[in-house]
Amino acid sequence: MAIIFFLSLFSLLFFTLSSSHIIPRFPYSVISPEQQLNSGSVQNGLYRTKFFTQILDHFNYNPQSYQKFQQRYLINDTYWGGAKKKAPIFVYTGNEGNIEWFTQNTGFMFEQAPYFNALLVFIEHRFYGKSIPFGGKKKVAYANSSTLGYLSSAQALADYATLIIDLKKNLSATESPVVVFGGSYGGMLAAWFRMKYPHVAIGALASSAPILQFDDLVSPYAFDNIITQDFRSESENCYKVIKGSWNLIEETAKKHGGLELLRKSFKICNNYIGVDALEGWLGQAWIYTAMTDYPTPTNFLSPLPAYPVRKMCEAIDSSVTGKNTLEKLYDAASIYYNYSGTSKCFDLNDHSDPHDLGGWQWQACSEMIMPEGASSKESIFPESKWSVKDRNAYCKFAYNVVPRPNWITSEFGGHNIEIVLKRSVGNIIFFNGLRDPWSGGGVLKNISKTIIAIVAKEGAHHVDLRYSTKEDPKWLKDVRKQEVKIIESWISQYHQDLATK
Amino acid sequence: MAIIFFLSLFSLLFFTLSSSHIIPRFPYSVISPEQQLNSGSVQNGLYRTKFFTQILDHFNYNPQSYQKFQQRYLINDTYWGGAKKKAPIFVYTGNEGNIEWFTQNTGFMFEQAPYFNALLVFIEHRFYGKSIPFGGKKKVAYANSSTLGYLSSAQALADYATLIIDLKKNLSATESPVVVFGGSYGGMLAAWFRMKYPHVAIGALASSAPILQFDDLVSPYAFDNIITQDFRSESENCYKVIKGSWNLIEETAKKHGGLELLRKSFKICNNYIGVDALEGWLGQAWIYTAMTDYPTPTNFLSPLPAYPVRKMCEAIDSSVTGKNTLEKLYDAASIYYNYSGTSKCFDLNDHSDPHDLGGWQWQACSEMIMPEGASSKESIFPESKWSVKDRNAYCKFAYNVVPRPNWITSEFGGHNIEIVLKRSVGNIIFFNGLRDPWSGGGVLKNISKTIIAIVAKEGAHHVDLRYSTKEDPKWLKDVRKQEVKIIESWISQYHQDLATK
Repeated sequence: MAIIFFLSLFSLLFFTLSSSHIIPRFPYSVISPEQQLNSGSVQNGLYRTKFFTQILDHFNYNPQSYQKFQQRYLINDTYWGGAKKKAPIFVYTGNEGNIEWFTQNTGFMFEQAPYFNALLVFIEHRFYGKSIPFGGKKKVAYANSSTLGYLSSAQALADYATLIIDLKKNLSATESPVVVFGGSYGGMLAAWFRMKYPHVAIGALASSAPILQFDDLVSPYAFDNIITQDFRSESENCYKVIKGSWNLIEETAKKHGGLELLRKSFKICNNYIGVDALEGWLGQAWIYTAMTDYPTPTNFLSPLPAYPVRKMCEAIDSSVTGKNTLEKLYDAASIYYNYSGTSKCFDLNDHSDPHDLGGWQWQACSEMIMPEGASSKESIFPESKWSVKDRNAYCKFAYNVVPRPNWITSEFGGHNIEIVLKRSVGNIIFFNGLRDPWSGGGVLKNISKTIIAIVAKEGAHHVDLRYSTKEDPKWLKDVRKQEVKIIESWISQYHQDLATK
Repeated sequence: MAIIFFLSLFSLLFFTLSSSHIIPRFPYSVISPEQQLNSGSVQNGLYRTKFFTQILDHFNYNPQSYQKFQQRYLINDTYWGGAKKKAPIFVYTGNEGNIEWFTQNTGFMFEQAPYFNALLVFIEHRFYGKSIPFGGKKKVAYANSSTLGYLSSAQALADYATLIIDLKKNLSATESPVVVFGGSYGGMLAAWFRMKYPHVAIGALASSAPILQFDDLVSPYAFDNIITQDFRSESENCYKVIKGSWNLIEETAKKHGGLELLRKSFKICNNYIGVDALEGWLGQAWIYTAMTDYPTPTNFLSPLPAYPVRKMCEAIDSSVTGKNTLEKLYDAASIYYNYSGTSKCFDLNDHSDPHDLGGWQWQACSEMIMPEGASSKESIFPESKWSVKDRNAYCKFAYNVVPRPNWITSEFGGHNIEIVLKRSVGNIIFFNGLRDPWSGGGVLKNISKTIIAIVAKEGAHHVDLRYSTKEDPKWLKDVRKQEVKIIESWISQYHQDLATK
């Protein structure tokens, strides 16, 4: 079996050699046109859009560091109790994409605002969406490492601090407590923001934040092990069929007419680009469905039914007469790619990026060196190893940049985190759903009375932050209740501290 | 009376218009040749000198950020208990100057090393001493804001984190606890390091660290009020004579032969440069003597007797027949400038910088905007106000740089510090001596069980960190004992945490 494989970012990269093609998969990469946001659950008038004049480099004082750019943020003050009452401010620390998309998928904050009388603020991460330095010109900002160099997590956190402090001043609300929220990379930023800027945020809800997926902190096999387990937990046959599919596809491709058979079986458009791309396309379906294996119908990365991994396995295990393995695999994949049933064929050359996530590729080449994607013998994916060498080689090729693989743990820690956080910052909730492959890099155990790990066996990627639905299972309702209770305790403690200082 | 005055950095700056002349006075500025380090109390073989290859910009990934420089650090492992025993590492977070000088004035660490079996490490701050970026060439590094831009506190803290993590790895001592120490700006860095890098340091002894001397946190009059009080506490007459001296000097200067009289009275060399310079020279004597008003003979900024402010006031109050006010003022000033009695005349044009402190001027123009130096009606100095406008104007003139006066509180906090630190980081000792004018910007009250303020009414600028002497008063011995006890508790708590994790 070919070792080259989509699962390792770099195998994919090296064998397609199209840098525009390649977006590392954390966490929402390579979005197909079918995955556009369905704004059905989003009300109009959900927020007002504002811009803040931000400085290009917070940590340097050379002339170029003084360049300004416009940072977008979304604000909703419908339920805010106001400055006089020192009512809280809930801030979402934006991820690697258009902030509107994340906002619309963070219904939890909207639903809790009335209860907390909270002001809602969603801040876009620099270099994403409409928050583009260098005159807002993406072509310039993304031109090369001289401009992309300013895209880093530390700069983003400093942006958030600066914006929040200024906003509070302008609202005469300097004594309103700020709680930060985030999911995935946004969750990492929320946790790190509380650690680095405790004078700006009194607490953080860090949902599905793999802050330990760095250095040697967790196994690079963890991510794949969880995906494997997700499918295997539904059915052993389903796991075996997907595990065997890579070989089946490669053997089929070698036969006369095999490529055309594959193309037709998977409804790939005429501009089919080969077996590697097909395998990558399928692998993505399994990965992203595992990540978003939610208990209710959703439309985040793509429209999906409730429990989509189960649905995929049902398609694979189906005994409908006459369907061969390739057809069953297609049925499973189409749950991710074509649940709405509108796609006639799938264009593997389409690398459109509707949520504007492309900058993550740069981040994965500079500081976000997250060892994952290694596959064991037992994996649902072909065996592979994590290789920092491959990453380095790709990043040299794509950006002529040298990754700094130890920087994140140097700046934010991670080793002995249970000891460190116990004696330093408090007030962080780490939520993880164990069906989410990113939970392998999450904080899964309580660290102190105020550093709380909420773990949902049945949960997927930041499911707690989504809008509630009538069909939500009890465990999910309980998670959100627990989160509300904890956040409440932070705010009341803050008000008490303030009153008795 | 002329408003122009040395006490305001900018009056001095504007009226001398010599940018090489002007070094803001925090904390050890404009050192005369007489103030060379007397290394008498320093043993040979106190440390070995090493260099660490450091990256130019930790928070940016553009090509120039990857430039390397050699960062100096001093190390003493005589008493270290070793990695196997997880024996502690005491790190001094270097100030704005040659690290050897600070090391030689931090005897406390040397004296405690045997008791704690501690490894000692003193790290030099980037852009000072021998830790010069841009090929070690000071002319290049200090050329303009394009190169000086990399001189910032956040970069320095990241340097310390990077160096310490690497050093521990190389020593196979990743589980040895690190305690950071620092005095003055070094103390600010120690406190901030514990706040920002709790995963690297388990605690910090921040001595005379005016982390609140920013923004609107404390009065800009605090610094001068303390100096005034220092002299006034010795004698009301002494205070009045010095307070009256500025007028006396200016009136004298207006008279025929007045300037020459002044020159001779104060033993100023023939290249005398005017009344402003003379006033600046005198003012410095009062300021630095107040800062270093130690209870034993010392040689830090200059050789001084025990209780030098008292000695100055004794000279001023002296009733020795025939001495006029100018002569008495000279006698007092010469306690600071000529206690060793070796100087024949004083060269006000000599701006040599033996401890390599010049970079502070840049820091005071970029982020270290510390409102101080305003003088009230009651002040021992002429009335004046703090003006951020003046600072901006000077910094434009000197470096064409715009200060960022709100950055330090945005990055490190300060507002509501008692509430913030209570719920975030622990394990910091803030020592302040109330005779030290910088104590006005210090943390003077306990914040939590582990954020302890030690306040010594009789103490001066980081007196606790100095070598002990037989003449040390009881209060000073008690301060050090308390510090040792607290540091001990951090280390034992850490070992307990480690054993039970």
